[in-house]
Amino acid sequence: MALSPENEHPLKAFGWAARDSSGHLSPFKFSRRATREKDVTFKVLYCGICHTDLHTIKNDWGLTSYPVVPGHEIVGVVTEVGTEVTKFKVGDKVGVAGMAGSCGTCANCKNDLENYCPKMIMTYGAKYYDGTITYGGYSDIMVSNEHFVIKIPDNLPLDGCAPILCAGITVYSPLKYYGIDKVGMHVGVVGLGGLGHMAIKFAKAMGLKVTIISSSPNKKKEAMNHLGADGFLVSHNKEEMQSAMGTMDGIIDTVSAVHALLPLIGLLKTHGKLVMVGAPEKPLELHIFPLLMGRKIVGGSCVGGVKEMQEMIDFASKHNIIADIELIPINYVNTAMERLSKGDVKYRFVIDIANSLASFS
Amino acid sequence: MALSPENEHPLKAFGWAARDSSGHLSPFKFSRRATREKDVTFKVLYCGICHTDLHTIKNDWGLTSYPVVPGHEIVGVVTEVGTEVTKFKVGDKVGVAGMAGSCGTCANCKNDLENYCPKMIMTYGAKYYDGTITYGGYSDIMVSNEHFVIKIPDNLPLDGCAPILCAGITVYSPLKYYGIDKVGMHVGVVGLGGLGHMAIKFAKAMGLKVTIISSSPNKKKEAMNHLGADGFLVSHNKEEMQSAMGTMDGIIDTVSAVHALLPLIGLLKTHGKLVMVGAPEKPLELHIFPLLMGRKIVGGSCVGGVKEMQEMIDFASKHNIIADIELIPINYVNTAMERLSKGDVKYRFVIDIANSLASFS
Repeated sequence: MALSPENEHPLKAFGWAARDSSGHLSPFKFSRRATREKDVTFKVLYCGICHTDLHTIKNDWGLTSYPVVPGHEIVGVVTEVGTEVTKFKVGDKVGVAGMAGSCGTCANCKNDLENYCPKMIMTYGAKYYDGTITYGGYSDIMVSNEHFVIKIPDNLPLDGCAPILCAGITVYSPLKYYGIDKVGMHVGVVGLGGLGHMAIKFAKAMGLKVTIISSSPNKKKEAMNHLGADGFLVSHNKEEMQSAMGTMDGIIDTVSAVHALLPLIGLLKTHGKLVMVGAPEKPLELHIFPLLMGRKIVGGSCVGGVKEMQEMIDFASKHNIIADIELIPINYVNTAMERLSKGDVKYRFVIDIANSLASFS
Repeated sequence: MALSPENEHPLKAFGWAARDSSGHLSPFKFSRRATREKDVTFKVLYCGICHTDLHTIKNDWGLTSYPVVPGHEIVGVVTEVGTEVTKFKVGDKVGVAGMAGSCGTCANCKNDLENYCPKMIMTYGAKYYDGTITYGGYSDIMVSNEHFVIKIPDNLPLDGCAPILCAGITVYSPLKYYGIDKVGMHVGVVGLGGLGHMAIKFAKAMGLKVTIISSSPNKKKEAMNHLGADGFLVSHNKEEMQSAMGTMDGIIDTVSAVHALLPLIGLLKTHGKLVMVGAPEKPLELHIFPLLMGRKIVGGSCVGGVKEMQEMIDFASKHNIIADIELIPINYVNTAMERLSKGDVKYRFVIDIANSLASFS
């Protein structure tokens, strides 16, 4: 008979979990494996709330097995390292994102693209090599193979840095891979939420001209004055959209709701690239003729590999990029989820794990 | 008052034109401009029938103005050159494809991509600089600016070479641009018609493994034994499709009917590229999640620029690539159009202009 989550491993752990598709999160005692040769164990200080967490606790994708401890934007301080760990030592500031393991032998793994490994193991809600379930960062400690641990540079505040591990890499990676990262290029960003606001910051740091495309006219002032966007288009304003036709080298589309691609493809120059990083559940309509006429593409991108994640964090460090966050105690998490479902956050919730979790244990 | 097509230019010309959306083609007297400084005038020997010709004579896209003389796969022999022509002389074998002009100053023109110039002038049914309408290759002579004239290598039979000017470049260009041209790569080709059969020939000459994806099981034998495809998948055979999932570096999709993209995207490896060269009139369903999970793209491509067209013809010459054709006299053209609409041709009709047109003048 399988042991309970509390007893299957030697290391006591405590977090908040959802037990069913209500998505309600509450205290949860479980356990983690003891630090193995190549493991890094760290005390969790902060954990960002990603939209994926919300989808998962609500079982929106039908893949959740409960109880689930969400969280894959995790930062903290190393408390123990395994005997074969070479990259980290006790006291280091570290982060773990969405990946707990990968096969290590496929073409993607060999090319530092563990995120596209077909056997990639997610940080929470997945089956680890030993058959136990992975639990995420809404918890007091993490144990991770050092390969999947990111070094956090000293100048980055840990709370604002946490969301970069997911929201940051999600927009950084496609800008690089699709070559929409050359100084002077014009990039559009569809949607101004957690991903969108990170996209502005990274794109501006790369020297790009950035235009936000949003259905909310009231976001314009903040996008331009506070976040530094160069332009703002209201997606349902035909005149505004028309005036920008054929001006963009690329677009990062962060919207997960069903929406029209045709006007976005129209915004692209010849050879322009529309990159989807949001994942609408239903298929979108794709008009083929405009793709042909401008040799345009619609592509996808999903987070990034470990090597690129470190590169991205180092880039963020150099350019002082962190997320705009609202820091919350763990007992606010259910309210935060409700607000997140309405897009009511500027721009990412981060849970103050170290200062608020212990009081509920 | 505008002059009639027969009198607006000094050079008498004769061809077959459609007068209305019945698409019926019949003899048509018109005229062409006298050879200007940079013009090449040539006697048309052969002209291929492209599916676009059929769409145009039937006004399927609502853009046709009648009378229209179709034909943009045109080959012949130079009879006169303008005083400033440097690349051609009388007696040269030449071809003209879909383009009669372009702005010459936009970024695309400067990058030898006249085909993506927003002011590109099509070989037929478009307004030329002098305000007159362009007429295509179902006619006895052509006058073209030398910039848009292709030199046909001596070893290529002119009749089998004609369709390469459109069907050939349509598949060659995306293989090159999207990088699906490296020896040993595996490419899928959706649809085995005029474009599909050319795709096999070019891809095989590039050293690729080629798999045809078709809804017609009865095309398998010919695809593999005669055309040299390495594999054949029946698109509605789930087992066959399943067995090939994740095996292709790229796919050239030549199908203009509405069809499912999801199974095709499934055939791609991580980073695989699905390139549309057919143009379904209605939008297709695009599932975003599979794009994200494999950083895959759906792109488009439309013929090629003049420089690439010459490169493609030279490649064809080196590898002895011509189209499989059915040579027809001009008075068979209406029947040919009817058969083309049913896909009843292996694999391209070519009109024997020089030997059949004159008798109707």
